[in-house]
Formats: sequence, structure tokens, C-alpha cells
Amino acid sequence: MLSALDLARRVAAGELTPQGVVDLCAEAINAREAEIGAFATLDLVAARSRAENLAATPLRGLPVGLKDIIDTADLPTTYGTALYAGHQPKSDAALAAMVRRAGGVIIGKTVTTELAHMQPGKTKNPHNGAHTPGGSSSGSAAGVAAGFFPIAIGTQTGGSVIRPAAYCGVAAIKPSFKLLPTVGIKCMSWSLDTPGVFAASVADVAFAMAAITGRDLAVSQGSPAPPRLALVRTHAWREASEAMQQAVEAGAGAAQAAGASVTELVLPPLFEDAFHAQATVQDYEAYRALAWEYDHHRDLLPASLQALLDKAADIPAETYDAARRTARRARNAFGGLMADLDGLITASAPGAAPKSLDTTGMPTFNRLWTLMGTPCVNVPGQVDAAGLPLGIQVIGRFGRDRLALEAGWFVEQALARTN
Amino acid sequence: MLSALDLARRVAAGELTPQGVVDLCAEAINAREAEIGAFATLDLVAARSRAENLAATPLRGLPVGLKDIIDTADLPTTYGTALYAGHQPKSDAALAAMVRRAGGVIIGKTVTTELAHMQPGKTKNPHNGAHTPGGSSSGSAAGVAAGFFPIAIGTQTGGSVIRPAAYCGVAAIKPSFKLLPTVGIKCMSWSLDTPGVFAASVADVAFAMAAITGRDLAVSQGSPAPPRLALVRTHAWREASEAMQQAVEAGAGAAQAAGASVTELVLPPLFEDAFHAQATVQDYEAYRALAWEYDHHRDLLPASLQALLDKAADIPAETYDAARRTARRARNAFGGLMADLDGLITASAPGAAPKSLDTTGMPTFNRLWTLMGTPCVNVPGQVDAAGLPLGIQVIGRFGRDRLALEAGWFVEQALARTN
Repeated sequence: MLSALDLARRVAAGELTPQGVVDLCAEAINAREAEIGAFATLDLVAARSRAENLAATPLRGLPVGLKDIIDTADLPTTYGTALYAGHQPKSDAALAAMVRRAGGVIIGKTVTTELAHMQPGKTKNPHNGAHTPGGSSSGSAAGVAAGFFPIAIGTQTGGSVIRPAAYCGVAAIKPSFKLLPTVGIKCMSWSLDTPGVFAASVADVAFAMAAITGRDLAVSQGSPAPPRLALVRTHAWREASEAMQQAVEAGAGAAQAAGASVTELVLPPLFEDAFHAQATVQDYEAYRALAWEYDHHRDLLPASLQALLDKAADIPAETYDAARRTARRARNAFGGLMADLDGLITASAPGAAPKSLDTTGMPTFNRLWTLMGTPCVNVPGQVDAAGLPLGIQVIGRFGRDRLALEAGWFVEQALARTN
Repeated sequence: MLSALDLARRVAAGELTPQGVVDLCAEAINAREAEIGAFATLDLVAARSRAENLAATPLRGLPVGLKDIIDTADLPTTYGTALYAGHQPKSDAALAAMVRRAGGVIIGKTVTTELAHMQPGKTKNPHNGAHTPGGSSSGSAAGVAAGFFPIAIGTQTGGSVIRPAAYCGVAAIKPSFKLLPTVGIKCMSWSLDTPGVFAASVADVAFAMAAITGRDLAVSQGSPAPPRLALVRTHAWREASEAMQQAVEAGAGAAQAAGASVTELVLPPLFEDAFHAQATVQDYEAYRALAWEYDHHRDLLPASLQALLDKAADIPAETYDAARRTARRARNAFGGLMADLDGLITASAPGAAPKSLDTTGMPTFNRLWTLMGTPCVNVPGQVDAAGLPLGIQVIGRFGRDRLALEAGWFVEQALARTN
């Protein structure tokens, strides 16, 4: 993998040019893209030319892979579906423009599941081509894992940032809701869609987040104070594999050994209600957000999305409103639960990437936190017996993205010391 | 004006066909569109053909004017700017698709200010062509006032639904934030942009809202209980003209005479802070939402928008975060203030439409309520000494759109009885 932080330091020191970084990416891409399939669109010549004169920018001209539901004025954006084959947006999504403003070079568009729902694209897991890379941000996660680009952007409505990051063994953040704008990103659910950032390590993710947002989010300076953490199993714990349960406990143990306080937190039943509310909110909104596609081109949608929307047509407004009230109650209660905590530790996914290219895995450990709008950080660094990555998740309080990144970084470093 | 409710009843009774309604609209359009300029795009032949077989739908095939920042797959959408001349979106905005699902016929796209900011389009006020129709939803408000269509959709970020409705003497609702989706609508501020609905009277607006959302929002059955209202002057009261102050007091007086309880409410200083916070949130987000336009085509933007974005570039994230916290505190406090109230009464605008086609007037009485996300209803029915409409505003609690519409309807009927 390419460390964004390391590359940025070398560019800043004049040891490497932004174009030299594109060349490093090109080398990895030429070696493995045919096998992995992370890109929906790739134009290395254009990327190399755009990298000129960006060495002094916050992102130092580093290449960024952009999920192909994020509009770009200079690259087609096809939302992973034949319905939008060849679609060329007129303008950049706000986040694409922010990446460019920060001095990032959009090296290509990365593979998404169809309309960011469940039907997989062509991407394979770089750790084992028989396994899913996860989704819906498949190409963004796989491309960082394969060293195709040091930074990538994806989006999460259920678990589409944290899960693929976990499966591909890269770090990622799904930041607080609305910290990164969704303007110009194909919508599935306006209450849930949340852009996120992938990179090799948590410190790399924090560097990219700081550069893109202009906020004080970098964690690479000095050592953060040991965080106050709690291990939380959620109602779905029995769906986590034994290896995953051990990985979470190992993460908590390593953090504790490194000086963090680690307690256990049992979530009240309200949070199981909120978990289920996520699906209601998502499906009710998807039936409207994708109304044109469903009403005019239902047959071109994948069967899983047809089934979701067929069913979503019948969700009464009262059921949706009740789900939103449940979400609001859970968000309010969460602040109280976290009063003396910097972060929670739990699983990022039920286990390692499933051995299948027909599924992208389950968002079991993500849906609740997307609905809560809280920052979630995938901490890589562990593997199962077959050598596949196991990601664990550090969850922070709404608006405390820096604290969540620092806690994730602390756990990542603590785990590295135990290996 | 064409009453949506009346037309719908006649179509339901078989006295009129949806195509006959299009013909009524065409008659008014042919008589006055050249003078008023409400349309950015108009295709009466296509509208007439689309109206077939819609008599049994919730909207009964009624024509709807759609602000030209709302994407339509079958009509160009140019956001009021030369930058998007001829722009043809691939798909419908969610709200455009919802209008069609409800059986509405999109009769044309209505004039917006440039990118829904301040630079006026060609539209004139139907009550006096030397006066502004208000903005940014200029064509939607003017078109309803001129009888070009019984229903229109606009959007409000500062005061762009309620103010033009007031200036043009039509009813409108800016509903609770997120009740109508913004997916596929050109964004200025993702925390503020709120679609709204225009029609001849409050009951017509409620009929359209009910049909489009599938929610129980219609107020036309029976008599609502007299509402508990409070007259609120806000910190900006001295900016309201004498005629407007009298109109608000007349509305409150008429409601009281009709059986409503009317008290007075003085807003705590927090709400003046929230008023100012609206501009910070809007401008910070606009600098990102319009990043592509600003970074690549600044010279094509109107001077007022250039100036806004030039300045917005320097708003620190901390200032924006503080504004959002102020908004959250004010929203929480508002629930308490409204515990025993169904609605507030205040001005919809500082006065009648200014005599100018270079400005669309000021959102002085709207900014706060857009930030609050609460339903606002413009109640028409009064005029100043020159015969220009004066609109007053009924403001409800978040999520209580039906109560706000009922209160607005009650005030409208009470005023009608005093005339």
C-alpha cells in the first residue's frame, strides 16, 4: 500500500514529485488492475498532467480514487449501472471539487455496486481474488489495498465504507453526517448517505480528511492521550465470527495494555430498534430518491434493488416518521452513554470477506452507526487464519471526528506493537 | 387564479378533463406570459398529451409549474444561468418524479434567479409589472398568481418560497425540512434548501401537499378547531412597513374574532443569533455546493453571487460549526416555546413587493425559519393602499405541517370574512 502521509512528506521534502507519485500508482495499476478491477474509468495520462504544480497544496498532488457515483465534469460517472452508461455530468460533485481544491488528483473513478446497492461490480479482493472486496465502495477499498492510489472516497448508506475497508485491510472513516457534502453524489437515502475516506492507515486517513476539509483533523503530530474506550457488542454480536470476536477483544486488549481505559458498554434496547429503523429510513427514501429509475427503467435495475423498491413502495409515511423518531431518540441517548468515553470498539463486519463474488457481505455492524450519524473508523491490522483482513471499528461521538480518529490511531498503533 | 381544489373536484366529478384544465392554463398563458415571463421552458403540446388518463390520480392531472433548478428528464433545466444553457438532465429530481407519480402534469419550468441566488430573471409581478415578483422562485409564484397553473414548486434557502408568494398574493408552504426531498435539485446549501409548494389558497396548497407526499395533510374537510396562536414580531420588526405591521395585526385580530386564542410571544435573544447563523451556514455551504461553478466559471456568475462566494471562502470551519450549534440550540428551545401553541403569526416579508426589477426583495422575515426547519405558510388575502398583495406568515412546529396548514387556513378564512 501507498501511505498518503509518507508520500506527502516526500513530496514536501522535494524527494518526489506529484507526477512521480502518479508513476508509482501506474506501476501498481499496470501490474494488478486486470486482475482486481478497481476502476470504472481511468485516465493516467490526464492524471499525470493534472499533477503538475500541486506539490505545495495540502494534498501535495496525491492521486485520489473517486467512487463512480460521485459526479465529475471531466470523467464519465455511470453509477455502476447500464442505465447510466456513458453518462457525463456537467459539473463536479462538491466533494470532487473539494478534493481538487485541496490539491488532490482524481486518478480515476472506482467501481461501485449498481447504484450503490447490493449487486457487485467487477472488483475482486486484492488479498484473495475469490473473495468479495465488500461494497458498495468496492473499487475505492480494493484500490487502496492494491496500492493503486493512496487515498480514495466512497459512501456509506448501510455499511459501504467501513465494511469494504475491513474486508480489504485498509483504514477508513465514515465521518459525522454532513461533515463531507453529498451534493452531486447519486442519492439512495438523503438521511443516511455519508461520504467517507479510505487510506492505508488511520493516520493517512486523518491526513486526507484534514486536507480535504481544511479542518484540524490530522493525528500524526505527537502522541494522543490514551483514550477512554468501551467494548460494545450490540444485539448482533452472535453474528460475528469467532475470529472477529477475538479480533475485537484483541484490539481492546492491546489498547488497554497501551494505557487506554477499556470498559464494557451494553446498549439499551432502543439501539436495536434504531438498527431496524435504519432499513425503514433507507428503503422509504430510496423509493423516492430512485423514483425516476424505478418508474421508467425498473427492468434495468438489479433484482435485489427491484425487490427493495417494490416493497418500499408500501411503507406508510407513519412508519417512516416513527423510524425517524426512533433515530432521534437513539441519537439523543447516545450522547449520554458517551459522556465519559472517547470511543467504542466493536466489529467492522461479521468476519473476514466472504468467499463469493455474488455478494458484498452484510452491513450488520454498520447500519446502526450510519443512522446515528457518528464518526466510525475502520482499524486494520489483524488477519484471520487464512490471512484475510479483519477490521475493527472505533466509533466516536457526533462532531468529534478528531477524537474518533485519534482513538482509532491509538488502537492501530497498540495492535501494531503486539504483532 | 385557478384553484387546485376546485379544478380537482370538477375533474373528479367528470365536469372537466385534465386536458381541459391544460386548455384553461393555455388561455391564461397565451394572454399574459409575454408580459409576465414566468416560464423558462414551456411545452403546452407535450403537457396536453401527458394529461391524458390522469383524471383518477391524486392530483387529477393538474398542471404543475416546476422551478428551473429542479431536474427533469424531459425538459431542459438551466438553473437560471447561461453557464447551464441548454442543460438536459438525464433523470428527474425525486420531487419531479413524486409530482408525476401523484398524477401531476409538469406544464413547464419556471423562472428562477441565477442559481437560486439574488440576480433576478425576466419575471414581473402580475399585480404590477414595475414590481418584483420576489425570488428566487419568481416564476412559480407569479405563474400561480397569473392563473398559468394551479400548483407550483419552488425552493427556499433564505426566503425564496414565502417571500415571492407574499409579493404575488398566492398561498405557499415551506414545509418541515426534508418533508420534500431535494435530491436532483441544484444545491446552494444542503442544511437549508427546502422545497415548497404554491397554490391559490392555503386549502389548495394543502391539497397539493397531501397528493404529492401521500400524507394526511389536506385541510379542506370540515372546520379545524380554532388554533392557539401567538403574534411574534422578531428582532427585525422595525424593518416591516407600517402596512405590513397592520396586516399582521389584522390577521391576528381576525383569527381572534373567529375564535382563535392569540397571545404575544417575544423570542429570546438566541433567535436573533440564529437569524445571523443562517447566513453563515448558507454561505459556508454555498462555497462548497457551488465549488465547480466558482472554481471554473466565476466570471459567468452574477456579481452578487461572486461577492458572496469570495467572502465565503474565508469563513473558518469553527465559525460554521458555531453557527450550527446556535441553530441546534434554537431548534431545541423552539419546541419549548411552542408547547402550548399551534402556530405563530408574523410578516412574510418587510412589505409589499418593492418597485424594482433589479432586486427580489429581502428575506428578513424568512431566514430564521428556514434555519429552524419549521413549516411556514404564507397566508394571502390582504393588499396595501396601492393594491399590492401583503402576505402574512403562519409558522408551526417541526413535523406538524398539518397543524400549520390548518392554522394558516383558519387565518385565511377569518381574513376573508372581514373583507
